[in-house]
Amino acid sequence: MPPAEGGGMEIIVKDIPNTMKAAVLKRYNQIEIVEMLVPKPGPGEVLCRIKAVAICGSDPKMIEGHYAFANWPPYFPFVMGHEWSGQVIALGEGVTNFKVGDRVAGEAHCGCGQCDNCKQGHYTVCLNYGKDGHDGGVDTGHRHYGFYWQGANAEYNTYKTATLCHIPDNVSYEVASLCDTAGVAMHGVELAGITTGGTTVVFGPGPIGLCAMQEAKGLGAGRVIMIGRGTKLELAKKLGADVVINFEKEDPVAKVLELTGGVGADEVLECSGANDSPYKACMMVKKTGAVALIANYRDDLDQVALPLNTIVFNEIKIFGSKANPYVSKKVLNFFSNGTINGEALITHRFPLEEYEKAVDTFQHRKDGAIKVVVTP
Amino acid sequence: MPPAEGGGMEIIVKDIPNTMKAAVLKRYNQIEIVEMLVPKPGPGEVLCRIKAVAICGSDPKMIEGHYAFANWPPYFPFVMGHEWSGQVIALGEGVTNFKVGDRVAGEAHCGCGQCDNCKQGHYTVCLNYGKDGHDGGVDTGHRHYGFYWQGANAEYNTYKTATLCHIPDNVSYEVASLCDTAGVAMHGVELAGITTGGTTVVFGPGPIGLCAMQEAKGLGAGRVIMIGRGTKLELAKKLGADVVINFEKEDPVAKVLELTGGVGADEVLECSGANDSPYKACMMVKKTGAVALIANYRDDLDQVALPLNTIVFNEIKIFGSKANPYVSKKVLNFFSNGTINGEALITHRFPLEEYEKAVDTFQHRKDGAIKVVVTP
Amino acid sequence: MPPAEGGGMEIIVKDIPNTMKAAVLKRYNQIEIVEMLVPKPGPGEVLCRIKAVAICGSDPKMIEGHYAFANWPPYFPFVMGHEWSGQVIALGEGVTNFKVGDRVAGEAHCGCGQCDNCKQGHYTVCLNYGKDGHDGGVDTGHRHYGFYWQGANAEYNTYKTATLCHIPDNVSYEVASLCDTAGVAMHGVELAGITTGGTTVVFGPGPIGLCAMQEAKGLGAGRVIMIGRGTKLELAKKLGADVVINFEKEDPVAKVLELTGGVGADEVLECSGANDSPYKACMMVKKTGAVALIANYRDDLDQVALPLNTIVFNEIKIFGSKANPYVSKKVLNFFSNGTINGEALITHRFPLEEYEKAVDTFQHRKDGAIKVVVTP
Amino acid sequence: MPPAEGGGMEIIVKDIPNTMKAAVLKRYNQIEIVEMLVPKPGPGEVLCRIKAVAICGSDPKMIEGHYAFANWPPYFPFVMGHEWSGQVIALGEGVTNFKVGDRVAGEAHCGCGQCDNCKQGHYTVCLNYGKDGHDGGVDTGHRHYGFYWQGANAEYNTYKTATLCHIPDNVSYEVASLCDTAGVAMHGVELAGITTGGTTVVFGPGPIGLCAMQEAKGLGAGRVIMIGRGTKLELAKKLGADVVINFEKEDPVAKVLELTGGVGADEVLECSGANDSPYKACMMVKKTGAVALIANYRDDLDQVALPLNTIVFNEIKIFGSKANPYVSKKVLNFFSNGTINGEALITHRFPLEEYEKAVDTFQHRKDGAIKVVVTP
Repeated sequence: MPPAEGGGMEIIVKDIPNTMKAAVLKRYNQIEIVEMLVPKPGPGEVLCRIKAVAICGSDPKMIEGHYAFANWPPYFPFVMGHEWSGQVIALGEGVTNFKVGDRVAGEAHCGCGQCDNCKQGHYTVCLNYGKDGHDGGVDTGHRHYGFYWQGANAEYNTYKTATLCHIPDNVSYEVASLCDTAGVAMHGVELAGITTGGTTVVFGPGPIGLCAMQEAKGLGAGRVIMIGRGTKLELAKKLGADVVINFEKEDPVAKVLELTGGVGADEVLECSGANDSPYKACMMVKKTGAVALIANYRDDLDQVALPLNTIVFNEIKIFGSKANPYVSKKVLNFFSNGTINGEALITHRFPLEEYEKAVDTFQHRKDGAIKVVVTP
Repeated sequence: MPPAEGGGMEIIVKDIPNTMKAAVLKRYNQIEIVEMLVPKPGPGEVLCRIKAVAICGSDPKMIEGHYAFANWPPYFPFVMGHEWSGQVIALGEGVTNFKVGDRVAGEAHCGCGQCDNCKQGHYTVCLNYGKDGHDGGVDTGHRHYGFYWQGANAEYNTYKTATLCHIPDNVSYEVASLCDTAGVAMHGVELAGITTGGTTVVFGPGPIGLCAMQEAKGLGAGRVIMIGRGTKLELAKKLGADVVINFEKEDPVAKVLELTGGVGADEVLECSGANDSPYKACMMVKKTGAVALIANYRDDLDQVALPLNTIVFNEIKIFGSKANPYVSKKVLNFFSNGTINGEALITHRFPLEEYEKAVDTFQHRKDGAIKVVVTP
Repeated sequence: MPPAEGGGMEIIVKDIPNTMKAAVLKRYNQIEIVEMLVPKPGPGEVLCRIKAVAICGSDPKMIEGHYAFANWPPYFPFVMGHEWSGQVIALGEGVTNFKVGDRVAGEAHCGCGQCDNCKQGHYTVCLNYGKDGHDGGVDTGHRHYGFYWQGANAEYNTYKTATLCHIPDNVSYEVASLCDTAGVAMHGVELAGITTGGTTVVFGPGPIGLCAMQEAKGLGAGRVIMIGRGTKLELAKKLGADVVINFEKEDPVAKVLELTGGVGADEVLECSGANDSPYKACMMVKKTGAVALIANYRDDLDQVALPLNTIVFNEIKIFGSKANPYVSKKVLNFFSNGTINGEALITHRFPLEEYEKAVDTFQHRKDGAIKVVVTP
Repeated sequence: MPPAEGGGMEIIVKDIPNTMKAAVLKRYNQIEIVEMLVPKPGPGEVLCRIKAVAICGSDPKMIEGHYAFANWPPYFPFVMGHEWSGQVIALGEGVTNFKVGDRVAGEAHCGCGQCDNCKQGHYTVCLNYGKDGHDGGVDTGHRHYGFYWQGANAEYNTYKTATLCHIPDNVSYEVASLCDTAGVAMHGVELAGITTGGTTVVFGPGPIGLCAMQEAKGLGAGRVIMIGRGTKLELAKKLGADVVINFEKEDPVAKVLELTGGVGADEVLECSGANDSPYKACMMVKKTGAVALIANYRDDLDQVALPLNTIVFNEIKIFGSKANPYVSKKVLNFFSNGTINGEALITHRFPLEEYEKAVDTFQHRKDGAIKVVVTP
């Protein structure tokens, strides 16, 4: 009997099954639902019953093989899935900070804890990335769940407790599975810094951009301008954008300069991944302003043009932002107090068996899809 | 009789002449030595006897018209010269922080003091740039000496006191004229931040790069690697570079990664202005590392390629660095205590009458020229 | 005819009178309403018709002579009043950033613009404090309106434009006169830094504490705990405090530790001025937490006890916070968008003629007084 | 045969003995040299042959029972010793970043790696302090070697690898044992921040103060002023202090103000532990300056007086500084390049058998003792 989430009391599995269902990537572009062994929690790990997994923009790219250069996944068949929430159902040796029954949201990254970056708190850019011993090599303790180490597209998975965060009571498992998305946005927002009462521009009203927008407001932005197109721009408006710019109808650089009296935006959060957005971001940001890049770019040569002379003359700061170190508690609090409207971002739900359909719906924005959640 | 610098005592002009010699830019590519009126100090200004003017990399570019897009100079004939030192010989109304006889080094930028950037100390990126009333328009108080407002290529000039800094006794006027160059380097160094005991890479052993290198050492860098070529690389070695890389003989990215055990440099200071250096800087910097851009790039379209995915994946920070806010005291101290060897940077001296020859020597690196100083 | 504030159009005085009414401090404890000359705006100054002046906690102290040690006021009779708003009615020479008719809120401090602190943006702790020439001495440009230079308790006053900020359309003059109070709170909040989703404690539900509390929420605090007593604690609750602690009924240190699972608050904003609050703040703040001191203490010897060993063992950061550099735009935005409920803080209004009654009402918290505003 | 340090090659013990000599604290004020079991390295730990242990100011205090309030030591008999260096001679399970033969210096603190402070890099103020399971309770992974967990006053000890740092080749084991002392100083220096070209004051020319002084210089301080008395002041002068103030002969507050033209020092590093020094530090620091407290105070009530009104009026920042997170590499580099003269700080050496004599020599500053090192 699977663990049930209900009423005032959590019923925990007494007898953890030996096998479970999982959606695995057999090879590029081939997903299968298979029966596989339930993993056992090692020292410092817990076994979780996965309750919800959100599909991330990187998932279809990984399925299609676009991340082969990064060695994602490192082997086949591979269990993907890194935006997840669930319930702790068994503790590995030495676990002291979680107990059976805890509702938890996960981070994808676990640092080695000992490299120069981890020791300074930058554990999502651990210098021992990928040295996790899965291939018989050295295990430094690093994990990247769903990318380099078995992920959450299954009924169960084990996690190092450093990657877990308790979910506030009034936040559902489904919304909590957005903790990673909102966290990725939040890290970029923190790197850029929000100017109290200032003008923040967001490129791209996808899940990350919509989170970034709401976070900027919750951190004191005076005005948030969203740049995008289509129905997502409507959602941005509904979720609090003060101004929306449809880049198919207006020149966003000219418009932002107009709206700021020629001075430019205090900070620009680039969440679109469009190759020309970073350039535009630099052209519309204020002297001494900040641009956070919270996206990946389609460019085989990794050579995107930026206005370097403008960056120098205007003393612009650019921050590459990859993941979400020490922000999960923050965004879960924002979900809890309504600063981020998590429910509004979830447009579709599917059972694990329909994982492929879930990915298709998300990837092709079918039926107005914003965030698609799978419930194993 | 002009003011003399000598012995233990300063002799100040009693009778300031009405006219002075100046090297003016009559039109692009045409310099003339002319006789013109000595300006009078207005409220908050002092009149200075110019003692030394260093030629900056931007000077030949301005002479040749490459900065027409920036409206530099804003009119002809124009007195350029912005890296200077001199002596206060007359005080305008209300001046309280300088007295006649003071030895001073100058900054090129004077902010309006009231815009959002100036109020936060970012006065070199004043939001009222160029609104100095020279054209009969509004005078917000902003000045950019030698670029937009009359500069130091003359026997005398007036300056707002906010741009001046006292020269330590053991620093000569000639070395003090490098205060701007060293300050521009210093600001970039401060933006990047120096990792104590870490590895700092500098691109470009020109005057700014050589200052940046010595400043990084003086701020605690464990190892400084200079990338360049030719005799300047030798000078870098002599002035303290721990490692030099001749980019004509070795791949600097591969070499820096090798020297850092694959981790990359803690920070990279891009002082070369070569269009491919910023890209390389991003490829050799450590995850979470910083790249400061302390140069201008030859690119009519202002579109230089950067590895955006690498910047995102590695959480690289990029700082455009233009000028030198609140660093003059710091670099003058570094000249005074020998952290920066100012004398070693000055390879040539010319009288004002030979300004064109001075520019030619500097621009074409004749006779091993590093820094060329004119003494009006 | 005095300037009127009304409808869609501002009617500006055509003929500025020669004299005006002012409430002056003749000697300690003696206020008089007198007729005096309307000042003339000098270069860089504007003449304002004062619309509202809020009474600050420092005003009764200055009246009673408690600030004689600081030389406040520097002479008698003196026009106090530093929390003000008004309308620009005449421009001095060279003013370019304000025009006649502008609605403005003021800051009390104007820095000299040239000292080491001003050049870095710390203009409220100008190193040339008080060198304003009022006594025939050197005028470095520094002003401290209402403390050291003539203030706003009058129908008119002149101000350097660097101290002025435009009032958003939907903010009344009365609320705008709280710009200084809210700004003082904001600076302390910025120094401490607000932990997103964390626990912020505020000591003292007076005007500054109530502003600080609302600002902390507007900047992302997860939970704000207000410590105080009486009816003001009720107001704190109404204005958004998540928890209130009546220190007469509960031990605030024990309670905060209980509420935070023994960990302590992320930051404590000490706005009470009670001599034992800073000690308690250090005992209830988290390891690595921050305490901002945004108050003055009644202590003739300026020796208040702090738990230094606890501060060291727990790596606590303490920030003295005096005034409001570069925060006016921010708090006016917070008034405009409702983050700070300005109207709720204003409990009493008096004409200038009743200034003494206004001070008495404020100082003795008569009739539930929070913030008392005088309208000259 | 014990491991030898010599020539170009390290000879490592083949057969690690079962027992070793250790200096243990049997009860307060009673040290004994005993034979005890050599500990075995657990997962993630290494066994080290201890080469040098420096005596810290906290050691005699712990011996005498002054830290009973902190539960140091947590049990008897206890092996103290936390400033150490040694050689790795055996690896526990899963160790990947050190190998047998490595020369290492240790940090005293190992964080749990999972609490809010550890995740942000503040691992020396871990929120799970002391939960190390030594008493049969929960083991969160936290360790505080020599205070709460078995330390280095023995021939061997085991350590979690996160606490170790490789020693540069040209740094001896004895100097490397000062890594903790220099690191504690460095952390305080980093919290205060050093103003390039500015004036840094250090209170207390003991080992920490002398390190802080040299570090400040190495990070760009323009002038360092040391306050103290006696022969240690002479050593300060020799090691680079620009000015020394004998507080028995001069008022240090008046002198620092005089030396800085009334402005005050840019930062003050309080390393004396004298109860009146923090107050004086606040009175001599510049407006907006910083005071780092890098000492413990003799005060049973933990109530030391500070000038709170001055702190507020002058916007002084105070930083409690306890230990040394992520600074070991930095100070080892400073030892290696001569920024810190480690040899000059070591005045006495004793074998482990003479541990009591070593403590006595250090504690009572016998024979000009600065730093005393024991070599087990």
